[in-house]
Amino acid sequence: MPTYKAPVEDVTFLLNDVFQIDRYDNLPGFTDASADVREAILGEAAKLSEEVLQPLNRVGDLEGCKRSDDGSVTTPKGFKEAFKQVAEGGWLGLSAPAEYGGQGLPVTLSQAVNEFQISANMAFSMYGGLTMGATAALLVHGTPEQKKTYVPKMVAGEWTGTMNLTEPHCGTDLGLLRTKAVRQQDGSFKITGTKIFISAGEHDLTENIIHLVLARIEGAPAGIKGVSLFVVPKVLVNADGSLGARNGVTCGSIEHKMGIHGNSTCVMNYDNATGWLIGEENKGMQGMFVMMNEARLGVAVQGLAQSEVAYQNAVAYARERLQGRSLTGVKAADKPADPIIVHPDVRRTLLTIRAFNEAARAMVVWTALKSDVAHRSNDPKDRQEADDHMGLMTPVLKGVLTDTGFANTVSAQQMFGGHGYIAEHGMEQFVRDARISMIYEGANGIQALDLVGRKLPRDGGRAAMAFFGEVGAYAKEHGGDEAMKPFITPLSAALGHLQQATGWLMQNALAKPDNAGAAATDYMKLFGLVALGYMWARMAKVAQDKITASGAAPYLATKLVTGRFFMEKLLPETAVHLARIQSGSATTMELAAEAF
Amino acid sequence: MPTYKAPVEDVTFLLNDVFQIDRYDNLPGFTDASADVREAILGEAAKLSEEVLQPLNRVGDLEGCKRSDDGSVTTPKGFKEAFKQVAEGGWLGLSAPAEYGGQGLPVTLSQAVNEFQISANMAFSMYGGLTMGATAALLVHGTPEQKKTYVPKMVAGEWTGTMNLTEPHCGTDLGLLRTKAVRQQDGSFKITGTKIFISAGEHDLTENIIHLVLARIEGAPAGIKGVSLFVVPKVLVNADGSLGARNGVTCGSIEHKMGIHGNSTCVMNYDNATGWLIGEENKGMQGMFVMMNEARLGVAVQGLAQSEVAYQNAVAYARERLQGRSLTGVKAADKPADPIIVHPDVRRTLLTIRAFNEAARAMVVWTALKSDVAHRSNDPKDRQEADDHMGLMTPVLKGVLTDTGFANTVSAQQMFGGHGYIAEHGMEQFVRDARISMIYEGANGIQALDLVGRKLPRDGGRAAMAFFGEVGAYAKEHGGDEAMKPFITPLSAALGHLQQATGWLMQNALAKPDNAGAAATDYMKLFGLVALGYMWARMAKVAQDKITASGAAPYLATKLVTGRFFMEKLLPETAVHLARIQSGSATTMELAAEAF
Repeated sequence: MPTYKAPVEDVTFLLNDVFQIDRYDNLPGFTDASADVREAILGEAAKLSEEVLQPLNRVGDLEGCKRSDDGSVTTPKGFKEAFKQVAEGGWLGLSAPAEYGGQGLPVTLSQAVNEFQISANMAFSMYGGLTMGATAALLVHGTPEQKKTYVPKMVAGEWTGTMNLTEPHCGTDLGLLRTKAVRQQDGSFKITGTKIFISAGEHDLTENIIHLVLARIEGAPAGIKGVSLFVVPKVLVNADGSLGARNGVTCGSIEHKMGIHGNSTCVMNYDNATGWLIGEENKGMQGMFVMMNEARLGVAVQGLAQSEVAYQNAVAYARERLQGRSLTGVKAADKPADPIIVHPDVRRTLLTIRAFNEAARAMVVWTALKSDVAHRSNDPKDRQEADDHMGLMTPVLKGVLTDTGFANTVSAQQMFGGHGYIAEHGMEQFVRDARISMIYEGANGIQALDLVGRKLPRDGGRAAMAFFGEVGAYAKEHGGDEAMKPFITPLSAALGHLQQATGWLMQNALAKPDNAGAAATDYMKLFGLVALGYMWARMAKVAQDKITASGAAPYLATKLVTGRFFMEKLLPETAVHLARIQSGSATTMELAAEAF
Repeated sequence: MPTYKAPVEDVTFLLNDVFQIDRYDNLPGFTDASADVREAILGEAAKLSEEVLQPLNRVGDLEGCKRSDDGSVTTPKGFKEAFKQVAEGGWLGLSAPAEYGGQGLPVTLSQAVNEFQISANMAFSMYGGLTMGATAALLVHGTPEQKKTYVPKMVAGEWTGTMNLTEPHCGTDLGLLRTKAVRQQDGSFKITGTKIFISAGEHDLTENIIHLVLARIEGAPAGIKGVSLFVVPKVLVNADGSLGARNGVTCGSIEHKMGIHGNSTCVMNYDNATGWLIGEENKGMQGMFVMMNEARLGVAVQGLAQSEVAYQNAVAYARERLQGRSLTGVKAADKPADPIIVHPDVRRTLLTIRAFNEAARAMVVWTALKSDVAHRSNDPKDRQEADDHMGLMTPVLKGVLTDTGFANTVSAQQMFGGHGYIAEHGMEQFVRDARISMIYEGANGIQALDLVGRKLPRDGGRAAMAFFGEVGAYAKEHGGDEAMKPFITPLSAALGHLQQATGWLMQNALAKPDNAGAAATDYMKLFGLVALGYMWARMAKVAQDKITASGAAPYLATKLVTGRFFMEKLLPETAVHLARIQSGSATTMELAAEAF
């Protein structure tokens, strides 16, 4: 059976030392998140994840969700009690506004907690995660009355939320959607249509579910410019806040999926369901984008979180499994064989995962901090810079953390040999669960296009130039530091590759957009490697400074070795991405569709 | 529901044009495999795979195998009838010796048939595949009586075979195995012990199952030098060939696995089961290696075969799914959106899979031909060269074709967006089924070590030098041909990387074996890329010559584009593998086990 231990020390190092979160005490909520409060919250979150959520992970996979003929859905045994515990512990409202019952703490902190919960039980964590996404959209675009009606209950975990975008014939291209909204005299709408792949669409965890639904108002323009966003509660809410009649929305079936069996993925049928417009007519995508950006960062964390828990279990197995002898002589003479962690190829595999995880975690903290600044700072310049960063890094995080996170679960499973293929060890569940993160909230190919086609050129490339400038300045500042050379030299080379790739796109993609499309995935991966490498340089510098100041500590020594591994073994991949980008799109586009 | 069409044209191009199989007419069995016979066999094999085996693939996954309390195992509905059809069609004996009822045709042909069957239904194909592996071991190491007793029935598919190596505490390190063999007065042995992960260990397809079992004779030396191989039939065979008493071997349980649900993976309990020694005492690994080399090539084909069928289904979906518009303007004006195959990133994904598949298929044909030469040629020099090639390429094929094959199933699944995660489309089954091929028959890390530690240095590096010499000579011969430049230039660069990596290993790994261990996987991948690139150069040359001779044909034009894609986009990865290898093992080995 797999186990999990939340990486509290690593998160604390990032918050306290690398990003020095105390510097942000001028932002609302940050003074409440003092070092000792953070320590207490992370400790409690770790305990909840390790002791309550993780033990339900395998149960959830085995049992899955069951739909009854009446359309109700039963979640796996123990999920309801655990969800109640999460809700009552205030975990869903950690960074929600205090006026709606939240604790108003930084998103930076709630994303760290998020990682723990997803590592422990990804399918379970989605019920709360989607609720927070829906809450965010309501907070930004909802009317005061909508906020008052729904948000406090959702923050408290008494109700959950969903996102209803996909229809059988459209996912990426939402302009094709057909779900219809008919205006009623009282200002409400009657919603009719079918939505698919609705995570947490129906379940037994809470007494109400608040669906956010994209639909087309009768007479609206065709395409994406005729799509509006609606709030459609499963159970209508009376004026006094009590629950009223059941609304015309039902779960038609649940999907049989590769993984995340503990989360119900529903076909939702809307049949003259009553809904209310959120935000402006025909501008539904604006509200959805609020949810989607939140959700994309959350999905990126899923990639990291599954990679982390898979790593931990692979390490434990590699320390225990006795098989063969070290190439450099017997290491465990008292045992019939050496533990496989003596073998270089096993260590290579483990370090490849670890070196990603720690830098990915840093990227998440870094970007979550920017999210806090973007939403909470009084300084428009700070807000703009932070918002630029968020826009630029969201597709990179979503694409790179889920692609690599999934690949890492596969590598971790490989450490178990044949045992990794057997369900009872739980390693194959990490692979199956992690797989979805590459697909939903915008498949990773779409993230790459978002980066290259939208985020990169936006505002004359301002966000990307700021990032290149920051990394370049950092490399310049520390380039003379001998101890930092193993980090700065490869980082500078990688940044050079990214800048060359960017230059190539500027010269070749404007006139020929296929060059951007063909380059997109490589550009995203190249970008991600540079960002991860930058994180490693920053972590290494802080670790070196701490060792200089307070002496060596095992955690810091390991950090430096892991960082050097990243620089030596993983960062050089930037060269291949650059070469691929520069080879253009001619060959890619040459064949007719029927030639494939 | 997924579909499958066997790539008969591609196999025919390889057999007839690229490798000119007719040149081998001096080898036994090859004259029987004339062009029209090959065409007929491939056509029939395609039909069987497409019409009989493929429709059972999803059934097999859904139903799985079921063990009853009496230890019997029921295979999925339809498997028994299909197996009978395969057996009666003579498909299991295609390249088995005529004296045992086989058709004696080239292995080159049976491996092509093998690919079709695995693409159609991997779990099903394993029942026959393991039977052929066991037959091979019996043919090489069995006594005349053992051969006479078992082989004709196995060739006819009346009985199946298994390999029993793994025990709960040992897989890779078989020296640790504990299953015991006690010598009886009549020369037989009583076998007692538990074996795990026994594919096709128990089932209802045939009336007998012939287990080949590794065990330790009482008093034998410790470690691998005390391991012997035994034949242990499920049902004892009387002197007249009729079936006698049930032997003391039972299926204790079947494993719940990530995939290949249609194949029963058994815990086999041997309780004083009667067995007979195969080959010499304490030299059981010799017999096992015969099975393992056959099996490893077969597993390599599994990687290719799953990649192929996943590709075909991804292409079909990409041609049909309408979503978004081309970056270069509307392509399907009569439809609400363009098919996604217009998008460069979709094409990039599809071509990445295709460019691998076609070169991997060439590598399989090339190596299977060498297997035929090694086993059938009268010329000792030809035999030695072919055997060198087999030894060198087997780990490369097993490691690279299964790693890349699996990754390709994941990419193909990605083309389906959310639909790829849903079981009914069948794409996630390809991923789950393909995953095992990276693990069994020696996990891929072990293949890499086999290559670097054993196959590369063997006989003073003779096999590797021959390969480098062949590729180098080919590049030199065609380097002046302008039309071949897009192939020869990158191939030469990649070969250079491989030679540099080899030189680095020679200088750095002898004194420090960890340098070999840390480099092994990268070296294997680098080696595989060069071999695949060489296949592309050869295929391109033949395609160009055919076009010159007989004019353009769609198949040949597509071949050239796909090959250029490989050269531009995939082969450049050799540079990263070289850089990683040259960075050595210091960082990899630095941490203590407890620091991970």
